[in-house]
Amino acid sequence: MSDTGTLTIVGIGPGAHEHTTPAALEALRVAEVIVGYTTYIRLVQDLIAGKEIIRTGMTEEIGRARAAVERARAGAKVAVISSGDAGVYGMGGLVFQVLQESGWRRGDAPELRLIPGITALNACASLVGAPLGHDFCAISLSDLLTPWALIERRIEAAAVSDFVIGLYNPASGRRTRQIVRAQELIRAHRAGSTPVALVKSAYRRREHRVLTDLDHLLEYEIGMLTTVIVGSSQTFVFEGHMITPRGYTNKYTWEGSALPGQVPGRSLVVAEDS
Amino acid sequence: MSDTGTLTIVGIGPGAHEHTTPAALEALRVAEVIVGYTTYIRLVQDLIAGKEIIRTGMTEEIGRARAAVERARAGAKVAVISSGDAGVYGMGGLVFQVLQESGWRRGDAPELRLIPGITALNACASLVGAPLGHDFCAISLSDLLTPWALIERRIEAAAVSDFVIGLYNPASGRRTRQIVRAQELIRAHRAGSTPVALVKSAYRRREHRVLTDLDHLLEYEIGMLTTVIVGSSQTFVFEGHMITPRGYTNKYTWEGSALPGQVPGRSLVVAEDS
Repeated sequence: MSDTGTLTIVGIGPGAHEHTTPAALEALRVAEVIVGYTTYIRLVQDLIAGKEIIRTGMTEEIGRARAAVERARAGAKVAVISSGDAGVYGMGGLVFQVLQESGWRRGDAPELRLIPGITALNACASLVGAPLGHDFCAISLSDLLTPWALIERRIEAAAVSDFVIGLYNPASGRRTRQIVRAQELIRAHRAGSTPVALVKSAYRRREHRVLTDLDHLLEYEIGMLTTVIVGSSQTFVFEGHMITPRGYTNKYTWEGSALPGQVPGRSLVVAEDS
Repeated sequence: MSDTGTLTIVGIGPGAHEHTTPAALEALRVAEVIVGYTTYIRLVQDLIAGKEIIRTGMTEEIGRARAAVERARAGAKVAVISSGDAGVYGMGGLVFQVLQESGWRRGDAPELRLIPGITALNACASLVGAPLGHDFCAISLSDLLTPWALIERRIEAAAVSDFVIGLYNPASGRRTRQIVRAQELIRAHRAGSTPVALVKSAYRRREHRVLTDLDHLLEYEIGMLTTVIVGSSQTFVFEGHMITPRGYTNKYTWEGSALPGQVPGRSLVVAEDS
């Protein structure tokens, strides 16, 4: 073991270890100190027995990030964990901000490493089909740190331009209006029959999935652990799966030959443009 | 081994096996037939020795999907592989469309399974910092299957509403105008100094990363294997890393206490609104 501390920011994926990468598992194995939100620590409990654990509550992210940086600067091998990917609404950015605040420079200890993870959006998508098969966006409905006006602006832009929309943090015990408003904003630009998936606790013990549509999504329970995926105008439901096609049938027959006027490897020719 | 065929759609992640999940590795192990694009087959070559392999070129996706479905319906254990996540611009959606075309119903053979993978966007992000720390979108600049007008509409909407923007398929030997136009569209709404990351072949042998900005990104090589990440107005560069903050400093001091007027667990109070 070297004397220099290391700081590894680890995305552990949705929860089940079979979806945690070997790199993430190895990072947990070699760490001396594990820093993370209580819920995420619990997801990897069996992998980190005997290690020092720094866990705090949900609004204490800054304290966790500071503790991680301090311990790593003092020489410890520290792993900061987030569920999903630590860089997506996770601890990644905050750890960098704390490093910056502390005067850290490239080349200084601790040595930094980021290990990507399966995001909640991808985990949830895989449980309902292939809803992210074309352009998509992720929007957090939490206005705890972001002005609600900006969140509305993003929902509207995504709705107008036909992105598949993944909504993170759609609601909590206290926040219930945001998903109602999001539904309203999207519905103004998209059919009520647009497929919507509600996936809770993907790949965890209490996993629950609902396939519904834009007009009916508010009839189901939506909470902190739910990810909402709203389809684009092209998304369809097939035998219980939600699919957003890439667009092969715009250009090819099922035999794989190009449709009249289309050339493989060339831009799609759109009738209205010709 | 059962007599019923299985069809597993597997995201193998960026390439290095340490970022391929145990579930994906296991799916490759038990498969009898592996179906995938030549480049992706090569990434897992050492894991699939002795298995039957169906690989075809880039514009032959329909043929590959059909072969996979036919073999699985005939009783084989088939794994269809994509790099990244198979549901994100991958083979996932197309396999469902072929199943639909073939008259498949839920409960019929083959048994279906989707295994999520680390997407190119997340893999690339982890190599440059935490650029996806807040709302982001993914847009493919390939107009081979999608009308260019729609792609432009999405780029513009994402630029206006301050999403971090991940651009897939930014260019190829033949397609070189799209990234030029994308830069122009985004630049109309975002500062020229906005951080931009260009990551090629993340976690593969020829991995290459460039951190630049919106005004200078076109001075670098951008090709088929490059993912472009354009920061939001909040994204900054710190010691060679690209960071999009979640917004903790909108509400808290570095000591973790709430700023005047802010309440932990409650909506962010925005000065202009009060």
